[in-house]
Amino acid sequence: MPASYSTNMRLKFPILAITLEAVIIILFGIFITYDDGADAGLAFKNTTKPDLFYKIYPSFQDVHVMIFVGFGFLMTFLKRYGFSSVGFNLLIAAFGLQWGTLMQGWLHHLVNGKIKVNIFSLINADFSTATVLISFGAILGKTSPVQLLIMTLFEITIFAVNEHLVTGILQAKDVGASMTIHAFGAYFGLAVSRVLYRPGLQNDNENEGSVYHSDLFAMIGTLFLWMFWPSFNSAIVESPDGQYRAIINTYYSLAACVLTAYALSSLLDKKGKLDMVHIQNATLAGGVAAGTAADMMIYPYGGLLIGFIAGIISTVGFKYLTPIFASKLNIHDTCGVHNLHGMPGIIGGLAGIIGAAMASKNVYGDGLLSTFPQLKTRTAIGQAGYQAAGLGATLAVALIGGTITGFILRIPFWGQPPDQNCFDDQIYWEVPNGENEHEDLLSSEHGKHKTNAEA
Amino acid sequence: MPASYSTNMRLKFPILAITLEAVIIILFGIFITYDDGADAGLAFKNTTKPDLFYKIYPSFQDVHVMIFVGFGFLMTFLKRYGFSSVGFNLLIAAFGLQWGTLMQGWLHHLVNGKIKVNIFSLINADFSTATVLISFGAILGKTSPVQLLIMTLFEITIFAVNEHLVTGILQAKDVGASMTIHAFGAYFGLAVSRVLYRPGLQNDNENEGSVYHSDLFAMIGTLFLWMFWPSFNSAIVESPDGQYRAIINTYYSLAACVLTAYALSSLLDKKGKLDMVHIQNATLAGGVAAGTAADMMIYPYGGLLIGFIAGIISTVGFKYLTPIFASKLNIHDTCGVHNLHGMPGIIGGLAGIIGAAMASKNVYGDGLLSTFPQLKTRTAIGQAGYQAAGLGATLAVALIGGTITGFILRIPFWGQPPDQNCFDDQIYWEVPNGENEHEDLLSSEHGKHKTNAEA
Amino acid sequence: MPASYSTNMRLKFPILAITLEAVIIILFGIFITYDDGADAGLAFKNTTKPDLFYKIYPSFQDVHVMIFVGFGFLMTFLKRYGFSSVGFNLLIAAFGLQWGTLMQGWLHHLVNGKIKVNIFSLINADFSTATVLISFGAILGKTSPVQLLIMTLFEITIFAVNEHLVTGILQAKDVGASMTIHAFGAYFGLAVSRVLYRPGLQNDNENEGSVYHSDLFAMIGTLFLWMFWPSFNSAIVESPDGQYRAIINTYYSLAACVLTAYALSSLLDKKGKLDMVHIQNATLAGGVAAGTAADMMIYPYGGLLIGFIAGIISTVGFKYLTPIFASKLNIHDTCGVHNLHGMPGIIGGLAGIIGAAMASKNVYGDGLLSTFPQLKTRTAIGQAGYQAAGLGATLAVALIGGTITGFILRIPFWGQPPDQNCFDDQIYWEVPNGENEHEDLLSSEHGKHKTNAEA
Repeated sequence: MPASYSTNMRLKFPILAITLEAVIIILFGIFITYDDGADAGLAFKNTTKPDLFYKIYPSFQDVHVMIFVGFGFLMTFLKRYGFSSVGFNLLIAAFGLQWGTLMQGWLHHLVNGKIKVNIFSLINADFSTATVLISFGAILGKTSPVQLLIMTLFEITIFAVNEHLVTGILQAKDVGASMTIHAFGAYFGLAVSRVLYRPGLQNDNENEGSVYHSDLFAMIGTLFLWMFWPSFNSAIVESPDGQYRAIINTYYSLAACVLTAYALSSLLDKKGKLDMVHIQNATLAGGVAAGTAADMMIYPYGGLLIGFIAGIISTVGFKYLTPIFASKLNIHDTCGVHNLHGMPGIIGGLAGIIGAAMASKNVYGDGLLSTFPQLKTRTAIGQAGYQAAGLGATLAVALIGGTITGFILRIPFWGQPPDQNCFDDQIYWEVPNGENEHEDLLSSEHGKHKTNAEA
Repeated sequence: MPASYSTNMRLKFPILAITLEAVIIILFGIFITYDDGADAGLAFKNTTKPDLFYKIYPSFQDVHVMIFVGFGFLMTFLKRYGFSSVGFNLLIAAFGLQWGTLMQGWLHHLVNGKIKVNIFSLINADFSTATVLISFGAILGKTSPVQLLIMTLFEITIFAVNEHLVTGILQAKDVGASMTIHAFGAYFGLAVSRVLYRPGLQNDNENEGSVYHSDLFAMIGTLFLWMFWPSFNSAIVESPDGQYRAIINTYYSLAACVLTAYALSSLLDKKGKLDMVHIQNATLAGGVAAGTAADMMIYPYGGLLIGFIAGIISTVGFKYLTPIFASKLNIHDTCGVHNLHGMPGIIGGLAGIIGAAMASKNVYGDGLLSTFPQLKTRTAIGQAGYQAAGLGATLAVALIGGTITGFILRIPFWGQPPDQNCFDDQIYWEVPNGENEHEDLLSSEHGKHKTNAEA
Repeated sequence: MPASYSTNMRLKFPILAITLEAVIIILFGIFITYDDGADAGLAFKNTTKPDLFYKIYPSFQDVHVMIFVGFGFLMTFLKRYGFSSVGFNLLIAAFGLQWGTLMQGWLHHLVNGKIKVNIFSLINADFSTATVLISFGAILGKTSPVQLLIMTLFEITIFAVNEHLVTGILQAKDVGASMTIHAFGAYFGLAVSRVLYRPGLQNDNENEGSVYHSDLFAMIGTLFLWMFWPSFNSAIVESPDGQYRAIINTYYSLAACVLTAYALSSLLDKKGKLDMVHIQNATLAGGVAAGTAADMMIYPYGGLLIGFIAGIISTVGFKYLTPIFASKLNIHDTCGVHNLHGMPGIIGGLAGIIGAAMASKNVYGDGLLSTFPQLKTRTAIGQAGYQAAGLGATLAVALIGGTITGFILRIPFWGQPPDQNCFDDQIYWEVPNGENEHEDLLSSEHGKHKTNAEA
């Protein structure tokens, strides 16, 4: 077994995890304090609006559920990788939200050497982990927890820089983060996956599939993502009317997307049967695609239209693009994040460009500048150009950042699972006997894997 | 295989789904716009209360979870029908909420040719789908997705008309919709099931049962329904004190119902063992039965009393009525919706009649007219009469509407699954190997089904 | 079979459940009424703040999910005890919240012979059930539903008295209830388990373990507890800034705890593999430990530090203490509640002592008395002393109360499962064939159990 396949977690993983946490605590001690509204001494002294916190907290909890249950269970579809899917998801997100708090704070909110955390900090910290969880989907089953922590560190750093570039410097709008989270996370992950490509894994791993119950566990993730997506797309919108619109637009976009995802899933199968992969994933494309334009005056039919298109393109992508990516481009995309987050993220970016170009006093009335503060100094067409620049920048940063991160992850020191142990919890987890034991009785294949994993 | 058993989804299903969605988009384009509070130009101009939206949004999300996770997973108890249960639930609800938005808008909220959607529109749209999901429970495993989309179209239309009749014209109170959603959905579904009755299915289908893990998946549905029912019963109550009462009354009704459901489940078994069917369903009867009177001054002990009775009647119904319905009345009720939604819905209607009859200045003080605006022009006994009329109308409309819809669903063109493929995902879904594969090794029966399904 | 192992639920269980519910309804009729804000006649007359109810309701629902889904599914990790875990959890909590409403009302809120229930009553009622659910974890699989109802009755009574002692009389702060719920529930349960100790059960029951899917079901419980813990620790904090802090502190404590729990789980395994028991439980210790000091000015790094320590101690406890407790102290702790609730609860109490000792005008400014009303008449060091007294009192009351309750539960009349039927649903539930049937084919052991259960 070559050195690069060392999978010994005994020391490297715990030392890395504890070191990262210790450094985080020191950095929090130096930089992080409470927002005025949460500071006992300042809460009553200033213009803090404690009401705001109560209004946003339910949306924060919805986003929280999406990150931990939504992404976590969505990836449990693999028959032998459920512990890793939901468990590494928790690990990545728990570390990522701490690092995201620091990175976003340093870039956006550093005042007098201090970062004041409030409810939006928590939401944005959760958001920053979403990018890594999306990328995790592309390389699911093929990387070690050590590699995942390293990727989290780098990806959130690059994400925060790109987010600052797109929404801070270019002043592109991206309230539901179709571009800065979804497209970014997907293309970053695909670039990582390209660099980590292993010919030995191609198409012959019997563990890279689902069983009946693992597909039902995955539906828990799908549904919590689907239901709470209106909160995701609206949580950080500043104006109440914009937040309201973001909820309504996303609600309808998701509903339309379900219809087209089901229709295409059946239409593209030679027997007309539905495929759980499409139902678990493509039904969510409407949420991704409605992100950037969520708070714009696209009207409910505009939301439906975005979902309609996203459901079709996502399902077609799963059916035809994913196999081509693997065979022609050497990009193996375990969860098909290109179809759920990549292309729908680009659709979302395009919808944002169109929505910005069409912004006018006619449609927005006196609310134009509260939805588009940029139009104080720009024309609508100009803003559309900046939206396009934001989309382009995101794709470029994601691909370059992912490629660099991929090469860092290939450093043999981190270790990665051997081909024959990919998509199998047993290499990293104590897996109970029981069902697996019975499967062993019926499958001589599995016995072999076990031996390899423990070799 | 007779024409009426054609199950080819290849073209009919995708064409139907895409056509429905396209028509919906056009109708939304013509009729649907934002509520003033969500309209950039109008949000700051008028008497909109943006506060209200923040107050109700958490309840909307609770209802949303009940519809998609609650109903969806509750029906996954069948051993081989989990994909269809949770998957068709999503499909029905996603289409239904769009159609419900239009139907309810046309009947209640059409102003100058436009329907303005707000947070209550989303809640009511979700509510309208609940009726179909209840009816779906009665015919679970025996109908095709094409039939289900057709049923959704008709049932929501008839539901919206009945709702308008009961709460609009008769001015009966039904805040938690014991009558207009639960009783309506149950009796509509039973009528459909009666018309679609197939002698060949009776009592001999080995797939119409649960396995250990499918019963645990169903408990996910049960618990999310149970926990969030206070939000269901209170979400659309107009007065804050009434909303507050609806939460408290429902909370206690559900708690009492659990005790009697467990007690009866054990008492009615000859060995005293608990039955998961009762635990999954009858524990929810208190939520259904507390619906109509939820915002009335029934006091917490009144809530407990309603739950106490509902838990008993529901469990007794599962034990004794469901088999009789199947054998004597030719009504096969897969999920026992008569016991969870039918009888408890009627109990709820009766509680509403009693509650209205007892309404007085004595009990409600100055809040009498904010809880019972009808008493401006009616006596309490008069209102009780209108409540009774609302209940009677609902049952009549449901039974007649369900019967007509049942005959429409029998039109051979739609196709329905052959008897031997009922309660089996394989006819409509790509089902992974794995667990099922092992079961195949142990069960020669299943091999046969598979062949039929793919024939 | 000795009389004490009578497991006949046929009459005892239903009679007990119905009698308890009937008595509860009578007591509610006598004592319980609506809070002014939920009373139609009083809502508009007084100083009620209906706003408050809307602000807190989302947190109540989060707590509700923790109680029913969180605790319920966390305990489904046992391979053959899922029905009982989630089912008895529902039963205990549904009864407990009614009894808790009465007990807490009598002790804290009895005015003119009436208890007025409001949103905080519902939260506190849910909280009171948490103590029993924690104790349930210690004796999971070894007790009958009759014993569990009896334990609920006694434990909530003793809990309410202790809570009154600690927060009412001693005026110790415990907003997130590290002491009064977590440490109390754990040590109460351990004392019960000690009294009910059975030598025959030690280490040889093959049912006391998980299978692959049961571990995934348990992760549903883990994640909902983890995500909503900020709501648990903040829900009853009175000042808005304190509530805000409690959310932020708990959020970060939980995140840090995940990193150390993962690190230690790997470090303590000889192959470096992660153990699902640790991931399911020790990742939550940060929430428990952040409870008492949650609303204090510990700053986010203080939250991280608490979580860091709790994650380490909890994982070490699972690895080394639990086996010692069973072998040396005759305390069998099925779920390891000592590691999740006991020790982290004590850490939380200690953090509260330190936090109180360090409270000063310097740190809290004008908010000092709104966070520490006790400092009107006490010094900070004095308050620290009362915090310590509260912790000591809680441990003493829990151990004594649990021991007494244990002896009551040993009364043969209640019945308890024979050793060979422990950790097996079949003694109390109709268990479907299917998967279990297949297991029977492969396991002759299980056939024996079945026979015993039905003997």
